[in-house]
Amino acid sequence: MMQNILSYQSAFTDYLEGYASPKEPENLYSPIHYILQLGGKRLRPVLTLMTAEIFGIDYNKALDAALSIEVFHNFSLVHDDIMDDAPLRRGQQTVHEKWDLNTGILSGDAMLIMAYQLFENYNPITFQALAKLFSKTALEVCEGQQYDVDFETRDDVTIPEYLKMIEYKTAVLVGAAMKMGAIVAETSEENQNNIYQFGRLLGIAFQLQDDYLDAFGDPETFGKQVGGDIIENKKTYLYLKALAFLDKKDRIQLEQLFSVQLDDNSDKIETVKQYFITSGSAKATQDAIKEYTEEAFKVLDTLSIADDKKSLLKTFGTSLMTRSV
Amino acid sequence: MMQNILSYQSAFTDYLEGYASPKEPENLYSPIHYILQLGGKRLRPVLTLMTAEIFGIDYNKALDAALSIEVFHNFSLVHDDIMDDAPLRRGQQTVHEKWDLNTGILSGDAMLIMAYQLFENYNPITFQALAKLFSKTALEVCEGQQYDVDFETRDDVTIPEYLKMIEYKTAVLVGAAMKMGAIVAETSEENQNNIYQFGRLLGIAFQLQDDYLDAFGDPETFGKQVGGDIIENKKTYLYLKALAFLDKKDRIQLEQLFSVQLDDNSDKIETVKQYFITSGSAKATQDAIKEYTEEAFKVLDTLSIADDKKSLLKTFGTSLMTRSV
Repeated sequence: MMQNILSYQSAFTDYLEGYASPKEPENLYSPIHYILQLGGKRLRPVLTLMTAEIFGIDYNKALDAALSIEVFHNFSLVHDDIMDDAPLRRGQQTVHEKWDLNTGILSGDAMLIMAYQLFENYNPITFQALAKLFSKTALEVCEGQQYDVDFETRDDVTIPEYLKMIEYKTAVLVGAAMKMGAIVAETSEENQNNIYQFGRLLGIAFQLQDDYLDAFGDPETFGKQVGGDIIENKKTYLYLKALAFLDKKDRIQLEQLFSVQLDDNSDKIETVKQYFITSGSAKATQDAIKEYTEEAFKVLDTLSIADDKKSLLKTFGTSLMTRSV
Repeated sequence: MMQNILSYQSAFTDYLEGYASPKEPENLYSPIHYILQLGGKRLRPVLTLMTAEIFGIDYNKALDAALSIEVFHNFSLVHDDIMDDAPLRRGQQTVHEKWDLNTGILSGDAMLIMAYQLFENYNPITFQALAKLFSKTALEVCEGQQYDVDFETRDDVTIPEYLKMIEYKTAVLVGAAMKMGAIVAETSEENQNNIYQFGRLLGIAFQLQDDYLDAFGDPETFGKQVGGDIIENKKTYLYLKALAFLDKKDRIQLEQLFSVQLDDNSDKIETVKQYFITSGSAKATQDAIKEYTEEAFKVLDTLSIADDKKSLLKTFGTSLMTRSV
């Protein structure tokens, strides 16, 4: 299994390198090559390749679809980093920091178009299926981003609203990455829809895990600053569940903590984490991760593929959910 | 002829109104409806509808393609207005002014995706042809915008470079608008390519006419501030030709005028216009407009359509080139 993932990753990285050839105007294309080569886990394209092979075709045939997903993902990072005013991405300067705002906007626009162009080598039926799924997903990602922005200035965000936001902003792209592999493999529509559901549910679990690790991850292995969401007063699942569980006095205290920006955050992080634990919200988040993962695994039973391929997907899902990074 | 154009315009406007239904999240979709309903000449979608009918089908079948072109055009306005820091568009607030920067970026992104979705009702072959043309064109528009940005800080822009910039930024979309009508009509590939060339050449003439009117338009009828390009030191065809024609002393004077930002521009505008006239650049621009228009009309001869339809296109082209607005 692990060997498979590494070989998908390296096949994808090779393909990506061939894609990023110098083009004119340089100020449009070099930021695109820069962000694409910053690295990352390449999780989504690997899922596309893996799914294509699980449904019986040579994964090389899915490389263009996988690359499209990765180009789109990086487009959304470039524009999101502008919106979040983020100086760093993967430890390096963001595009709008290294160049400027206009370059970030325009290079991002070009990437969104280039993602569609990567479907052009497929036959018309496959092309249309991929492009339709892509458009639907991309629009949902924009909607998710808009909800995320809207939530910053709202104090009545509900748990179902939050779940819908992370589903749109993160999970549908995981589902789409897998469904694209299934579309290229020309498997049945039922298999296509089921693998989408598998990816979508796993994507929600993945994002909840992200929320959890942001507060409770091991600083030695987590990579990012532990407590970043707390510093930024992000209304995560952990926070919303804590508000729901706490009695009025503690709820007001927690809301108070989430209304300020401090210079030194170490006390705030510790106090908030205590609220997350004592309220039962940390436990509820872990339970939710488990539930979404199990729901995803249930979908696997409905797929008409061999059992060894199902356990491949199961192992992969489990490895995602037990990660510390 | 005029009756045709008005009926295309009104059919298009009706269709647009049905498209702009309220959707959630409101902060993503209301800016989109706002910009789409600001008006404008709807020149590009009218060309799509007209071309579809010229190649023998009911123009109603091309409404989705026409709308896609208009949605894309408005996407590019929203993002360009951010890049140009423009407060007004068609006399109303720009999206990033009325809302904010992030809304402008994200709503624009959504419009680019929605433009692709408008092809989804066509059959897979037509869908692929439309989407491929759209992607190629949209990427060229981005490249044209990048060249335009790059030219601002360069003092060695050549006439061929300028012509390539306006071709990409403006003309290819006119060509694509017409070719889309031809694709939906399923006419021969030769007709498709020829009508594209017609639109592209007319588009270049149209943009040169824009440059000309910006300096020499009648303030009573022009609509925009006459001399706007001169105030902004824009390196237009008029300016680049004047530099090429003037002797060293006058060239340095003109370059000097184009290196300053003044509070009162009336003297500057008059002096620069005199340079444009005495250098022969005004005349050269009018000649170029005429040449591109005539080249476009020559392409008409190669189209396998009835003569009355050719004269329809010719009348339309002539009316564009003799406009004062």
